[in-house]
Amino acid sequence: MSNPTAAMIVIGDEILSGRTQDTNSNHLAQQLTLLGIDLKEIRVVSDDERQIIHAVNALRMKYTNVFTSGGIGPTHDDITADCIAKALGVSIDVRADARAALAENYKNPEIELTEVRLRMARIPDGATLIDNPISKAPGFSIENVHVMAGVPAIFRAMLAGLLPNLVSGTIIQSKTVNVKLKEGDIAKKLGVIANENPDVAIGSYPYYDDGVFGCNLVVRSADAVMLENVTALIRKAFTSD
Amino acid sequence: MSNPTAAMIVIGDEILSGRTQDTNSNHLAQQLTLLGIDLKEIRVVSDDERQIIHAVNALRMKYTNVFTSGGIGPTHDDITADCIAKALGVSIDVRADARAALAENYKNPEIELTEVRLRMARIPDGATLIDNPISKAPGFSIENVHVMAGVPAIFRAMLAGLLPNLVSGTIIQSKTVNVKLKEGDIAKKLGVIANENPDVAIGSYPYYDDGVFGCNLVVRSADAVMLENVTALIRKAFTSD
Repeated sequence: MSNPTAAMIVIGDEILSGRTQDTNSNHLAQQLTLLGIDLKEIRVVSDDERQIIHAVNALRMKYTNVFTSGGIGPTHDDITADCIAKALGVSIDVRADARAALAENYKNPEIELTEVRLRMARIPDGATLIDNPISKAPGFSIENVHVMAGVPAIFRAMLAGLLPNLVSGTIIQSKTVNVKLKEGDIAKKLGVIANENPDVAIGSYPYYDDGVFGCNLVVRSADAVMLENVTALIRKAFTSD
Repeated sequence: MSNPTAAMIVIGDEILSGRTQDTNSNHLAQQLTLLGIDLKEIRVVSDDERQIIHAVNALRMKYTNVFTSGGIGPTHDDITADCIAKALGVSIDVRADARAALAENYKNPEIELTEVRLRMARIPDGATLIDNPISKAPGFSIENVHVMAGVPAIFRAMLAGLLPNLVSGTIIQSKTVNVKLKEGDIAKKLGVIANENPDVAIGSYPYYDDGVFGCNLVVRSADAVMLENVTALIRKAFTSD
């Protein structure tokens, strides 16, 4: 049986303007790899209703899980929750459980839970809350779409609570062989090894560092013995180790 | 007249497995912002023919420019050039000018330009080469699709040569005001300011750092006076500066 799959949607103009380097998708990728959930696609879109709805609907039909980060705060540019509700065709309103979670943050919630703060308790109908241990305003899962905050520390905390609830798959293990040669020097022999071992994925990731070319050859497989054998073949072919 | 637009396609399993943090799209975003070209979408896809072709065709119809990074080396997993040719419905073969560029890298090109290395001189019919001052193997532009290497130093060098050829737009300037308050404390008044100044874009980017919440309010406009005025309004409303 093949592994569950996933896509990530990063929502935020600040990524597209280059102001902020997105790190949430890299963190998600690493966590999903540990669970055997195959991340197939990442999309970064702007804080724009049409773009968000289009991406959510394209990806939730295609993959087992869709994760989003960004746009669930209280300010005017936070439109993710409303877009998700529209994408799924459900209503959205302040919900008692989300309001209660949010209230934990305040000494006098009756006064401090202002109208704008209550925007963070707006949850699409039928969603399950995702706990936010840091700033309390919850994320939510609806069908296969998991909606989380953009602030990296909060995204990570939400994800840590969410992941144990997801169906995991067969963990793909990997080994990396560093080769201090140009790709052109190894491509032919590497192609033969890749061809003769179709059940193992071999990726070549070249780098250029301080005037020196090299590449990392990454071998991936769910089968530990096969992984070990092909890695040994590659090591023997291209390194003096 | 509205600005030219752009999308980025990052090609590589190593990003989706979490092994590598993509930095090319952040660099591209910063460079495009300086030119007034609006980056609208980033997609990360795997080294998979169907996914690459789908992304290229979806985005080249939608945006003025499409940039790709990754998958143009000599190894078996480098399939980008062939996918671009398929996406655009043109043929692809080793081209004399690309071969000549590649040959500059070798003392004895007749011997060293092996069959696998010549894979890097395969260029879709009708494309223009993009110079690679570092490792010589060229990128290429075909119609509005610009195909570059994944190695960050090479991607940046190729981009630097390419950008002066593109049509630029009106540069959107921005100012950032750091506010040491939670978003919930400013959202209402900020919403009013945003509403009263519809020609200026105001984004709120919250952060959480060492137990402290704050946000950066980013004001964007092509009009320097408006930018200054709204920034001053925001500064007055939320800071003691």
